[in-house]
Amino acid sequence: MPTIAVDAMGGDHAPDEVVKGAALVSTTTEIETLLVGDEMRLQAILDRVPYDPEHIAIAGARGSGVEDATRAVADGRADAVVSAGGAEAAIVAAAKHLTLLAGVKRPVLASVHPRQIEHEGQDRLALLVDAGATVRCDADELLQLALMASAYARRVSKVAEPRVGLLNMGLDETAGGPVLAEAHRRLRQHPRVHFVGNVTGDELVRGKADVVVCEGLLGAVAASLVGGMSETVGDLARAAAEQRLVWRVGLRLLSQGVERVQALTDFARYGGAPILGFERIALVCHVHADARTISNAIKVAAKAVRDRVPDEMRDALGRGR
Amino acid sequence: MPTIAVDAMGGDHAPDEVVKGAALVSTTTEIETLLVGDEMRLQAILDRVPYDPEHIAIAGARGSGVEDATRAVADGRADAVVSAGGAEAAIVAAAKHLTLLAGVKRPVLASVHPRQIEHEGQDRLALLVDAGATVRCDADELLQLALMASAYARRVSKVAEPRVGLLNMGLDETAGGPVLAEAHRRLRQHPRVHFVGNVTGDELVRGKADVVVCEGLLGAVAASLVGGMSETVGDLARAAAEQRLVWRVGLRLLSQGVERVQALTDFARYGGAPILGFERIALVCHVHADARTISNAIKVAAKAVRDRVPDEMRDALGRGR
Repeated sequence: MPTIAVDAMGGDHAPDEVVKGAALVSTTTEIETLLVGDEMRLQAILDRVPYDPEHIAIAGARGSGVEDATRAVADGRADAVVSAGGAEAAIVAAAKHLTLLAGVKRPVLASVHPRQIEHEGQDRLALLVDAGATVRCDADELLQLALMASAYARRVSKVAEPRVGLLNMGLDETAGGPVLAEAHRRLRQHPRVHFVGNVTGDELVRGKADVVVCEGLLGAVAASLVGGMSETVGDLARAAAEQRLVWRVGLRLLSQGVERVQALTDFARYGGAPILGFERIALVCHVHADARTISNAIKVAAKAVRDRVPDEMRDALGRGR
Repeated sequence: MPTIAVDAMGGDHAPDEVVKGAALVSTTTEIETLLVGDEMRLQAILDRVPYDPEHIAIAGARGSGVEDATRAVADGRADAVVSAGGAEAAIVAAAKHLTLLAGVKRPVLASVHPRQIEHEGQDRLALLVDAGATVRCDADELLQLALMASAYARRVSKVAEPRVGLLNMGLDETAGGPVLAEAHRRLRQHPRVHFVGNVTGDELVRGKADVVVCEGLLGAVAASLVGGMSETVGDLARAAAEQRLVWRVGLRLLSQGVERVQALTDFARYGGAPILGFERIALVCHVHADARTISNAIKVAAKAVRDRVPDEMRDALGRGR
């Protein structure tokens, strides 16, 4: 069973919700969790909730929680790291302590976003990469991140042949300037990429692509915009869901709409966004993460370890170059 | 009274809805409309609806409707042009026939998007510019489009001192690479720009900025994403609005949510997106434009002419350089 190092001090609701999330995992799975942070505080929180001491260990942090948790992975004490302490700190810690896959120049952040399902076998969440580890990317990097994110989607989302789209301002193969035109050409020609062409902003929330690639500036703005709009319509979904009366009066169309909006607004709690490009997996949770988010992220990280996602990425990067 | 040249053949519902929109304007305002297109077809549609022949003229199109309508502005037969035939065609026609303002290198497209109101005097729509006339912009161009869009917002939206934000991946003044860092510095220092700093994706739908500036690639994706998400939640708002029962059972919170979602989903019908940078005003409507959209766009164009928006832009560009 994999061991997941968790930055217990990172996030708006840390350490309480982080520890509770790990405790939940310990009583329901065989995953080993290594909580990294203030030992006495963490143990005091654990003592108040049900947990299985066979599956949880605590390690004191000398520096920041995320850095010490990442170091635990580098030292071989854990197989993957989870943190809700902010993507930037997690990327910096990973860059400092983990080893890049052969041929990868820079790590990238893959964010998950909800979308409609249009093709059989699609996951209800799609990957947007890079969501802000880089600013600008050249065509070679855009191809690399398509290969890495496809490998992740194949193993973690179980999408056999992930559809890859290039986020762009138009569908024409020359749209978006020379770098995107070159990336379009290389993605289309690569034997390991199932390229479905350019993806415009409105198509990001539809089922055209399972993996959407773009430079970090564009991806960070798009991911943040999806998050912001989800929050804006969130009250509506919550209010409607609470009012069971709505269902009883038979507003079928309304109930479908509420379900769709809920899917849009609930995804931030779903789990973590993977940092791709290293020999080991690091998952970043939303800073608002609660116990459920943390427990989901630990499970996703364990799954990525068991399914040997870094091997799949190395393999994808190596072939067809 | 200004004369507005309208491309009667452009858009998914042309020429019927375009002609009906112009007819509506003729019976309710003193604005002169010049409908450009297939004369016999246009007259046949006009004959079926109430209209004031004193305020509508028809001109045959020799080439494309948008190009001939734009030529009418260049020739002095009209003061501004409105088209629903696609932004790209409108920009190409404007570039061919209209004169750029002194010092402006390239025209830009300003799209309107709905957002929350946080400050007194804000319009419920904010401007996002450039929404796709360019791909990349340098710092000088980002400053220019902040000045032009602020001038437009001052005159058309009546926002006395429009708040300007720079769309970026983070709030730090150095976020987004050297071009955005330089743009941040120049926007902050310019005496004619009320700069409120960087704006992240989630803040685009809030009231932080009245004018959000960015390069065309980023703006086109963001505008399209807002449109796509609005459509995704649109069914919900429509269904809820139709079911008056919902109000009767007293779901106050739900009704507030529905209003907010409706504001998000209805904006595409509101009017036109201005092309900025020329001595004359060109407005682009959504290709799905109906009669109401067209009539609103004609009124906005007339208002922009009466309020001398190009003079305000020229003035803004000239000072403080």
